[in-house]
Amino acid sequence: MVKQAQKKEVSRIPRKSDDVSEWYTQVCLQAQLADYAPVRGCIVMRPYGYAIWSLIQAEFDRRFAATGHQNAYFPLLIPESLFMREAKHVEGFTPEVAWVTEGGDEKLSERLAIRPTSEVMFGMMYAKWIQSHRDLPVLINQWANVMRWEKSTRPFLRTLEFLWQEGHTAHATREEAAAEVQQMLGIYREVAEDVLGLPVISGRKSDNEKFAGAIATYAIEALMPDGKALQAGTSHELGQNFAKAYDITFTDADEQVKHVWTTSWGVSWRILGGLIMAHGDDNGLVLPPSVAPHQVVIVPILRKGGEEVLPAARRLRDDLSAVCRVHLDDRTEQSAPWKFNEWELRGVPLRIELGMRDIEAGTVMLARRDTLTKSPMRREDAVTQVPQLLAQLQTGLFEKARADRDERTSTASDKDAFVSQLKAQRGFVLAPWCERPECELAIKAETSAVTRVITGAAAPGETCAFCGLPAKVRAYFARSY
Amino acid sequence: MVKQAQKKEVSRIPRKSDDVSEWYTQVCLQAQLADYAPVRGCIVMRPYGYAIWSLIQAEFDRRFAATGHQNAYFPLLIPESLFMREAKHVEGFTPEVAWVTEGGDEKLSERLAIRPTSEVMFGMMYAKWIQSHRDLPVLINQWANVMRWEKSTRPFLRTLEFLWQEGHTAHATREEAAAEVQQMLGIYREVAEDVLGLPVISGRKSDNEKFAGAIATYAIEALMPDGKALQAGTSHELGQNFAKAYDITFTDADEQVKHVWTTSWGVSWRILGGLIMAHGDDNGLVLPPSVAPHQVVIVPILRKGGEEVLPAARRLRDDLSAVCRVHLDDRTEQSAPWKFNEWELRGVPLRIELGMRDIEAGTVMLARRDTLTKSPMRREDAVTQVPQLLAQLQTGLFEKARADRDERTSTASDKDAFVSQLKAQRGFVLAPWCERPECELAIKAETSAVTRVITGAAAPGETCAFCGLPAKVRAYFARSY
Repeated sequence: MVKQAQKKEVSRIPRKSDDVSEWYTQVCLQAQLADYAPVRGCIVMRPYGYAIWSLIQAEFDRRFAATGHQNAYFPLLIPESLFMREAKHVEGFTPEVAWVTEGGDEKLSERLAIRPTSEVMFGMMYAKWIQSHRDLPVLINQWANVMRWEKSTRPFLRTLEFLWQEGHTAHATREEAAAEVQQMLGIYREVAEDVLGLPVISGRKSDNEKFAGAIATYAIEALMPDGKALQAGTSHELGQNFAKAYDITFTDADEQVKHVWTTSWGVSWRILGGLIMAHGDDNGLVLPPSVAPHQVVIVPILRKGGEEVLPAARRLRDDLSAVCRVHLDDRTEQSAPWKFNEWELRGVPLRIELGMRDIEAGTVMLARRDTLTKSPMRREDAVTQVPQLLAQLQTGLFEKARADRDERTSTASDKDAFVSQLKAQRGFVLAPWCERPECELAIKAETSAVTRVITGAAAPGETCAFCGLPAKVRAYFARSY
Repeated sequence: MVKQAQKKEVSRIPRKSDDVSEWYTQVCLQAQLADYAPVRGCIVMRPYGYAIWSLIQAEFDRRFAATGHQNAYFPLLIPESLFMREAKHVEGFTPEVAWVTEGGDEKLSERLAIRPTSEVMFGMMYAKWIQSHRDLPVLINQWANVMRWEKSTRPFLRTLEFLWQEGHTAHATREEAAAEVQQMLGIYREVAEDVLGLPVISGRKSDNEKFAGAIATYAIEALMPDGKALQAGTSHELGQNFAKAYDITFTDADEQVKHVWTTSWGVSWRILGGLIMAHGDDNGLVLPPSVAPHQVVIVPILRKGGEEVLPAARRLRDDLSAVCRVHLDDRTEQSAPWKFNEWELRGVPLRIELGMRDIEAGTVMLARRDTLTKSPMRREDAVTQVPQLLAQLQTGLFEKARADRDERTSTASDKDAFVSQLKAQRGFVLAPWCERPECELAIKAETSAVTRVITGAAAPGETCAFCGLPAKVRAYFARSY
């Protein structure tokens, strides 16, 4: 029963430009964000990944609370008969449902679905809780695990079980529901761009691409380095579809009994996958400071005769802890260069190296993860300069990602240009479109791309870039995850 | 499709002393902590209940982090073949497992257990991650939903699905694992007593009552008003049982390959049930300030000619928000007395009433939830006095519960006293015990009570209070939830 000692040096990851898919997987594994679990299509989110996720959660939660939403927890299991009431929803989700059929020693008389999403359970409860217009709006969110029985999977981007938040709201009027949907889409956009540094396009989904049971779906979409789009958050106007299926009614001020208007909106740990994909480089993960568990890591250079180094590093840690999340790596078994590699792989925005020579010179050596550059900084300036540098990194990552996204976004107005650009798979193609589902299917058959979002109306006289019929809208097209 | 308007006045709950069981259910429902879901044995944790739970979580999380633990997330589903490796664990949990047998359109080739607890999945991953003594200890916690297929259920106290935290750690030596188990038991005790105001006894579980797969289980137990004990947290020494079943080994400093020593420890939302049960009164919930979503509610008395009242209430709210969690109830549709009842039912520790006469007198009226007394307070003293009062309430709830627990705890050294005290079902009975599993079963058959915890060794010469054989230990006995 001898167990081979695992190599503890930092392993090589492939170059991002050589094989972005394998690069992504290796970064997830080697930066200890996730690991494969011994159950098909499921992952373990390891502590470092979970710490990033917790910071992302906190950013969303703060904004949900500020807009009047409250968290709650609804059951995991949904009886099949309840699940089956909203026709489109059933059609869309049934192929992906995992079913519980046995409990303890008994065969259940009815199958229970593990929630793929919770419109059904929220609908059932809202029908019970909502009586009067005075009960509205109801604005509830939950953080939960959900399950969708997918064929192929990748850490965070597509897994059978995943963590997400799902907001479910009920309103007295269609206008209020529509405003809620736009408000939450705005929050998604804000967190994606300002917090995660992920530039996104946003807009309405085509009929083919909208949520099963929605009257309109809005989404934010980020562009990944392989030219594919990543749907990073969706916000749905459910109209009165679920209200009618689950009998959610209220007595309005005019004494009439009416169906409510509901919405739902969700972001999953997939957005963490988008973050890894967008900012990482050949050395591994690059984290935006706002969601970095360690914003700064201090690596003391411990050599003989350097007894002052560790105490000085501790003082620096203590000083910096007032202005940022700082970690002192005082492990003695690893060399300093080994630690440099490891913290680069794990994406820490700033590294401070501190040795005897630095102490004598009254400086520290500062390494930026984004530019991979090193320069000395006066020790006495650390507490003021580090927050400024973190802010610079935060903005810089977004600006770089946006420039890259813009550079890989093109427009097309005729079929040749449209098809060849989509086949080149460099990024988004913005084009006038007829909005016909069958046209979208034809585009998909020829190019593997579909609409990602519809951004607005076409100009008068414009024709569909693919089929040549009159264009109704302008839409972004791309292949997608 | 006319829907009957629900009565919006605060409904009656039974007196706690008349029917504690029905009182408990009605408090859970009417204080909007929970509601029954349309799936057997499952509840919805409503926003108010969830807010309390979030505050409890934060108290645990802070202490887990301070003792070096990190959060992570492990998969919900466990393949049957993996589940089946640790014999005692299988025997203990299999009767309570819900099984997934179908995914999408396919019948699965192997059943997947919904985790009733996650020793198995953590064990599998630890086997993969742990190589060397330098990797130890591994200290990971997760907040997750789990499922146990129970027959009868009650909100929070026993539900098919419940929320909990489960810590799983791996250590190089038995001593370190034992120290971890005691440390976590100490944290459970601290949160129960200092935060939730729940006095608990703690100690080791008997062989009959210990966790399936553990070599020793330690627990904290609170006494409920109906004389039953509530197991409110458990901490297990798993020895090398799971390490051997899941092959979790490490190369020690002496180059030998050894099995690790593991622990696990968990607290569920059941502890919230204990809190409701322990502190509540005939008017409803009574929350300890440390986990009250609103520590203070301000109810303005709005009458004609009182235009100054609402602005004054807002200023008071703004002032108090610096020192506590304060809520201004400025709803106009409900009367002030209705609001008083509602916030009493929902357990808010302090209520401040503010009307024109108070403003003119430079006072506010302060009502305490614990004593149900009202007295005026000078407005200018509010910001200093409210935190003091909250601290008083916090301590007072614990002292009261402890006095009650002590009053209902007795000792017995002979069979007549022992059996009659247990049959009276007033509370804990502390007695010398032989520690034989068959003796415990006989006690249970005669009195419905079992050991709750073993607190230490018996004195020399003491005999078992039930069977008369030489006593080995002293144990607390009671019926339990």
